[in-house]
Amino acid sequence: MRRMFAQSSIVFLIVLLFGQSSARSQNASNASLTGEWELTSVEMGIPSSQRMLLTDSGGHVEGSVTGHWVVKGTVKQGELRLDFSKSGDTKIYSVYSGKVSGTGISGTYSEDGKVEGTWSAKRAPTDKPASPRTLDFKPTQFYRELSGDVAPVLHIWPGDTVRTKSVDAGGEDETSVQRVQGGNPLTGPFYVEGAMPGDALAITIKKLRINRDWAGSDSGLVDRAVTADYVSGAKREWKNVRWHLYADKQTASPENGLEHLKNFSVPIHPMLGCVAVAPNPWDGSLNTRDSSEAGGNMDFNEIAEGSTVLLGVQQPGALLFLGDAHAVQGDGELNGNALETSMDIEFSVQVVREKEIGTPRVENSEYLMAIGLSGSLDDAFRIATSELSSWLQDDYHLTRDEAAIVMGSSIEYRIAEVADRNVDVVAKIRKSRLASLSSKQ
Amino acid sequence: MRRMFAQSSIVFLIVLLFGQSSARSQNASNASLTGEWELTSVEMGIPSSQRMLLTDSGGHVEGSVTGHWVVKGTVKQGELRLDFSKSGDTKIYSVYSGKVSGTGISGTYSEDGKVEGTWSAKRAPTDKPASPRTLDFKPTQFYRELSGDVAPVLHIWPGDTVRTKSVDAGGEDETSVQRVQGGNPLTGPFYVEGAMPGDALAITIKKLRINRDWAGSDSGLVDRAVTADYVSGAKREWKNVRWHLYADKQTASPENGLEHLKNFSVPIHPMLGCVAVAPNPWDGSLNTRDSSEAGGNMDFNEIAEGSTVLLGVQQPGALLFLGDAHAVQGDGELNGNALETSMDIEFSVQVVREKEIGTPRVENSEYLMAIGLSGSLDDAFRIATSELSSWLQDDYHLTRDEAAIVMGSSIEYRIAEVADRNVDVVAKIRKSRLASLSSKQ
Amino acid sequence: MRRMFAQSSIVFLIVLLFGQSSARSQNASNASLTGEWELTSVEMGIPSSQRMLLTDSGGHVEGSVTGHWVVKGTVKQGELRLDFSKSGDTKIYSVYSGKVSGTGISGTYSEDGKVEGTWSAKRAPTDKPASPRTLDFKPTQFYRELSGDVAPVLHIWPGDTVRTKSVDAGGEDETSVQRVQGGNPLTGPFYVEGAMPGDALAITIKKLRINRDWAGSDSGLVDRAVTADYVSGAKREWKNVRWHLYADKQTASPENGLEHLKNFSVPIHPMLGCVAVAPNPWDGSLNTRDSSEAGGNMDFNEIAEGSTVLLGVQQPGALLFLGDAHAVQGDGELNGNALETSMDIEFSVQVVREKEIGTPRVENSEYLMAIGLSGSLDDAFRIATSELSSWLQDDYHLTRDEAAIVMGSSIEYRIAEVADRNVDVVAKIRKSRLASLSSKQ
Amino acid sequence: MRRMFAQSSIVFLIVLLFGQSSARSQNASNASLTGEWELTSVEMGIPSSQRMLLTDSGGHVEGSVTGHWVVKGTVKQGELRLDFSKSGDTKIYSVYSGKVSGTGISGTYSEDGKVEGTWSAKRAPTDKPASPRTLDFKPTQFYRELSGDVAPVLHIWPGDTVRTKSVDAGGEDETSVQRVQGGNPLTGPFYVEGAMPGDALAITIKKLRINRDWAGSDSGLVDRAVTADYVSGAKREWKNVRWHLYADKQTASPENGLEHLKNFSVPIHPMLGCVAVAPNPWDGSLNTRDSSEAGGNMDFNEIAEGSTVLLGVQQPGALLFLGDAHAVQGDGELNGNALETSMDIEFSVQVVREKEIGTPRVENSEYLMAIGLSGSLDDAFRIATSELSSWLQDDYHLTRDEAAIVMGSSIEYRIAEVADRNVDVVAKIRKSRLASLSSKQ
Repeated sequence: MRRMFAQSSIVFLIVLLFGQSSARSQNASNASLTGEWELTSVEMGIPSSQRMLLTDSGGHVEGSVTGHWVVKGTVKQGELRLDFSKSGDTKIYSVYSGKVSGTGISGTYSEDGKVEGTWSAKRAPTDKPASPRTLDFKPTQFYRELSGDVAPVLHIWPGDTVRTKSVDAGGEDETSVQRVQGGNPLTGPFYVEGAMPGDALAITIKKLRINRDWAGSDSGLVDRAVTADYVSGAKREWKNVRWHLYADKQTASPENGLEHLKNFSVPIHPMLGCVAVAPNPWDGSLNTRDSSEAGGNMDFNEIAEGSTVLLGVQQPGALLFLGDAHAVQGDGELNGNALETSMDIEFSVQVVREKEIGTPRVENSEYLMAIGLSGSLDDAFRIATSELSSWLQDDYHLTRDEAAIVMGSSIEYRIAEVADRNVDVVAKIRKSRLASLSSKQ
Repeated sequence: MRRMFAQSSIVFLIVLLFGQSSARSQNASNASLTGEWELTSVEMGIPSSQRMLLTDSGGHVEGSVTGHWVVKGTVKQGELRLDFSKSGDTKIYSVYSGKVSGTGISGTYSEDGKVEGTWSAKRAPTDKPASPRTLDFKPTQFYRELSGDVAPVLHIWPGDTVRTKSVDAGGEDETSVQRVQGGNPLTGPFYVEGAMPGDALAITIKKLRINRDWAGSDSGLVDRAVTADYVSGAKREWKNVRWHLYADKQTASPENGLEHLKNFSVPIHPMLGCVAVAPNPWDGSLNTRDSSEAGGNMDFNEIAEGSTVLLGVQQPGALLFLGDAHAVQGDGELNGNALETSMDIEFSVQVVREKEIGTPRVENSEYLMAIGLSGSLDDAFRIATSELSSWLQDDYHLTRDEAAIVMGSSIEYRIAEVADRNVDVVAKIRKSRLASLSSKQ
Repeated sequence: MRRMFAQSSIVFLIVLLFGQSSARSQNASNASLTGEWELTSVEMGIPSSQRMLLTDSGGHVEGSVTGHWVVKGTVKQGELRLDFSKSGDTKIYSVYSGKVSGTGISGTYSEDGKVEGTWSAKRAPTDKPASPRTLDFKPTQFYRELSGDVAPVLHIWPGDTVRTKSVDAGGEDETSVQRVQGGNPLTGPFYVEGAMPGDALAITIKKLRINRDWAGSDSGLVDRAVTADYVSGAKREWKNVRWHLYADKQTASPENGLEHLKNFSVPIHPMLGCVAVAPNPWDGSLNTRDSSEAGGNMDFNEIAEGSTVLLGVQQPGALLFLGDAHAVQGDGELNGNALETSMDIEFSVQVVREKEIGTPRVENSEYLMAIGLSGSLDDAFRIATSELSSWLQDDYHLTRDEAAIVMGSSIEYRIAEVADRNVDVVAKIRKSRLASLSSKQ
Repeated sequence: MRRMFAQSSIVFLIVLLFGQSSARSQNASNASLTGEWELTSVEMGIPSSQRMLLTDSGGHVEGSVTGHWVVKGTVKQGELRLDFSKSGDTKIYSVYSGKVSGTGISGTYSEDGKVEGTWSAKRAPTDKPASPRTLDFKPTQFYRELSGDVAPVLHIWPGDTVRTKSVDAGGEDETSVQRVQGGNPLTGPFYVEGAMPGDALAITIKKLRINRDWAGSDSGLVDRAVTADYVSGAKREWKNVRWHLYADKQTASPENGLEHLKNFSVPIHPMLGCVAVAPNPWDGSLNTRDSSEAGGNMDFNEIAEGSTVLLGVQQPGALLFLGDAHAVQGDGELNGNALETSMDIEFSVQVVREKEIGTPRVENSEYLMAIGLSGSLDDAFRIATSELSSWLQDDYHLTRDEAAIVMGSSIEYRIAEVADRNVDVVAKIRKSRLASLSSKQ
């Protein structure tokens, strides 16, 4: 099965009603509920979170919940009841009832009179530092599976900058000590205060620098890159290739004494193979060699210093992971590994509230870039193109036809990666082409 | 990165050497090591298991380990040292050293003198029941993520039969009570004694029967099944479709009062959408809506009563999960959901030792069937075809060209499923076509 | 460019106006224009044909033209003028003017007052034989390119049966004499009286029988069928494989003395690899190793005795070609060649007027089958599925959702061929599943 | 069938033997055969041509024929006999016998004593102009089907430059007069003296300039570029979009008064959508909306001024066609049409003798580029990558592994086109990356 009872999953977190007040929540229950809340509904053990904005007018409570929900209800003596409906629609989809306490609200929700699950809400954090901070974080653990079950290593605020490090894809750090099993172990997770599902997290890579003098790679071409004719008759013995990284010249050269590559060198262009948020709890965990709408192992060589990655937040705090840095990578990551190495990373984050995106996006000074991730280049291409069109329609006031016309004359594509389960096709457009259009942003 | 230091992952569990003997393991250390062992090596927290066969000739120990390893060494006063090499190759790839105790052996292993990890071994189980048993198991929990971390619900032996039940893909059981969140929650895991990585697990579905009078499905066609022309202009509102299941007639009909389908009915043909073993620990967990060489959500309508599914064992005991039954499903599972319902299941298991297969296989009285799982039909087709060719070469004494000739004249294909991340293409061949060939089996 | 000025191509054959009458057309010009005409418009040298139905009420002419055109005009003294519009739309898209003569009508047509091309019309044939005929045709020439430029070898009427022969794909006939260069040389073309673009031609294969004792094939698997892993390391030397055909047993066995296939035999199941009509003149010719909506080299093993192939007519008379018979073929035609042989063919034709189909269809006593032809299995699958849905909606009074529900429970797929430029995926449904639905046919 | 009796097609043009001398060929038959010949063998009406180099030592004739053939024989009294074999192989594959006349040689060829076809040979042209010429050619006809049957409009020599014009994809010229039916009508064919199958033709675009003030395009996205989600619910009404071309500013802007694109403009970057040689006669003709190893409608926006296109010659004289120019085109040609316009073209040609390439190549001052053409992006990607690897191995003295390492670090990809039957993926590498390697060229 693909998705069962999809409608219930859309609706499953929907109304709150205060039970009987108790003496010990007296103070809390008297406080106004006005303000921003982080609401988490739990059905059959699986949590789902949304931002809730309430206005409490002396017991009459109104507001909205991410997902275009309108909520209306009452609070009396610490008992809250909220009906969830859609704007312009009288139908009550869900009823949330709960009790207010000093630390939040909690209760059950029901559809058609039947209890569907439990919920809780807490105040959105408000203690944002007066000015952005720069924080140093030295990782001691690295993760190969991304999920909301991993305890955050650091809580940061939008605007904050973090200086940290990543080990290479095989788990070796800047001193060539293996710290963790290979397979793209990542640094993090960083909890971003205020980030909620429905928001987008913008991660700006402020610095990305090599911090050791070697990188590891391979000598073969992955299956997806070769024709049967090319492969047949040839033995395919993959060998490790060790590259020397020259910090002074910022170049890399293979060390292995390959006869015709003695003078071969390429300019170092550091990039992050993996940038991810924790996936939707409904989907379980995400392996760091895989990718999804939460990002992950995208291996796109323009996720580099100066670029900003935009990912759809799937869990409260987003839970940002990053690593799998490459000193250099050609398009496609044809050798399976790029020039895998450890890295010094400096990044900052922002939260774009209530911003729905369909697939990860990257932006730098020159380009808007939409990343299509799928099991074939043909499908990834479709996704990337459709997403870039939506981007232009949303942010540049274009009709569907106008977006098509702009793209037809100006789009560019990259095939970012073909080495993993998902391939990545990137649809790009130069910002200079869009300069004459009025952006909403 | 795709796979870093692949060679180390191939070699990472390779030699054992006894440390100093201790008084408390005296008895154990005097016992002969001859026999079959289950060896587990752990590198950076990730376990990997193999079967080890040892012959202990008064302190001289020789044997083999799954993966074509030859081991040689000595045991003195409870201290074992084993060198791992390949047949006809003097190179020592790894050295395992450890101490023998009453419950097994444990120690560390090293490559080139450097400790790579720890290991332990225990005797393969020998208390197989005198005759196959039939066991009843009533599930109380259901799993949406498959991994070796889930405690087995039942230990069974090859030859045993189990009678159990599955909930539907949405988590509802035979009394229409929702027992778990939807998304193909499965019954199990069943630990199969003696099954080890390198073996194949054969699961024979002896009975598969509906146990309630309804199934849930949908009204739309999944994206992968439709052209842009077909979709454009049409609103795509997926509706739930409830089917009535007639146990007497063994037919199913939609209940929703669809104008032109009032008399429409289809014969019930129960099948299991998911049959899986726990995946390789290196790969993390496997979501039950996904599939891999460990099986999973394959949604192939010939995984039905009377068929045997062959899966490559990835962990000790295999850890068999099953469920996601369908009362009927057309090829492709075009509606995203098939006729999802709960089921009574009776299955037996066998272990085919040291049987390497590339992708899940199914066999029934009429056909051999290889399932190609990949992100596109084109790639899944290549996998299915190549696997069936290997099958014919291995089990029917054919050369590569002979297999090609047999297939060219006799192969059949099914497109089993396109509704999930992996699509499934099945390459089939009638056993009657192979009757004149001599099978090795 | 893909298609330039698409609208003009839709509209390019649109109005007729009589010029000055001449003495020699006096009789003709006085005759009523009432009846059915075959209209051919020529723009820049490229013809396009349509059926035209006219009612001449004493000089006032009204009627319709294939493509949902409504025509209205006048005829005076042998001068005809017809305005082309759409039902419920006052816009005049084109004006056709022409002169009536004894053999037909001819003139020019214009859009917005500008002459776009010339046209001519002749009476649809009316001399249909009283009862269907059975005709024998012994081919002397064979064609490797299909186009309307090839002179028909025989004019037949709907209902007629033809008995003929085909050479094998390499050009050898039933006496093993090479008659033509290889590459699927075909028998025909047969001109079917009354068949016009917008119609569908139904070709029923009444008999298809081998007429010699051998077939030629190959020993390898085509590139599209194998993984890189399967191919790498192996030499790919394709060898011819000669099969013996046993007419008595109706089996085939390889002759080449292959060690493990000495006793291997397969039942003969004759099929036609190619059935085609001449393609749309705008598209140029169609190579007989290729396929399109006009049919061609589809290599589907259910195009066999007893089946009916439905192809969209592209030119007047359809111009039917057929051949490339196979004694047996597995799905996919994995060896590049199937068991290629000459054949005795007996077929009949019918014309389904004004029947728009999207891709070739096949029907036999058990199944409806839609053939998706494209450059990848994924796209061919989409086409086949969408076409079968349209078929069910059109012929069985189903809504889009109802068709999806029927297909989700009952569809089957075959991968007919992967050896040529287009691959073929076939979507099938058993007629027994549709028995409870009311067919329009 | 895919290819029948492939071996005969490889061998089909192989030996020549003089018949009886005749009086009228006396002079010719006495002349030495030493020199270069253009050999054409005809089997069942289909010609195949090769270069033949002979040394005539008083009646003993030796030499070579394209395809790595070694020929040996005798000529006596105007009768030639040549045995075709492979270097280091005593097998005689074919015997060519023929008579020498004043204008060449002609006769029959046989395999295993059986006559397979006829052949003729003429002296390679030797009257090359002393210095390269610049020729003006004003086209009067344009072609929508490419084949060797079209009479050349001009004979040119390697090194020559031609100045000519192309109409737009819809057939309109620089004065907006429609000259031919649309569908990429091309200018040519130009016969290049000395070009023979087995050679590569290098076409350098010296100038490519717009010559009118408008271009035509469309407003939609082609099916291959959009997801089902993107398309569903939206009406897809493709509209023509007319762009104004500003020669002074070298920019283009849509004319249609689109609300949000009033100020939108893009820099003009002229390119040729089609560059082709006549296809192999065995394959029939090539539609100008299609592409193959002979080039054709590749729609790659770097086939522009300053670039050189390399195509494998398929027929004597190559028969070069070009046209379908675009003022600007984004990657993919997403609107089906790019900015289609007429163009002034200046190009020169060179012949690279005995240069086997697998797919069209493009080179400019910055990049080597291999164009993969196939029915899916996945297959086109494989072809492009494999071809670029072969290019590096052939021209830069690299082993297969070394080429893989260079590509892994340095390759770039473009998705050139998705609007036609074949999609184009381009694998590129910067020449600066290869500067340290020694090129063979």
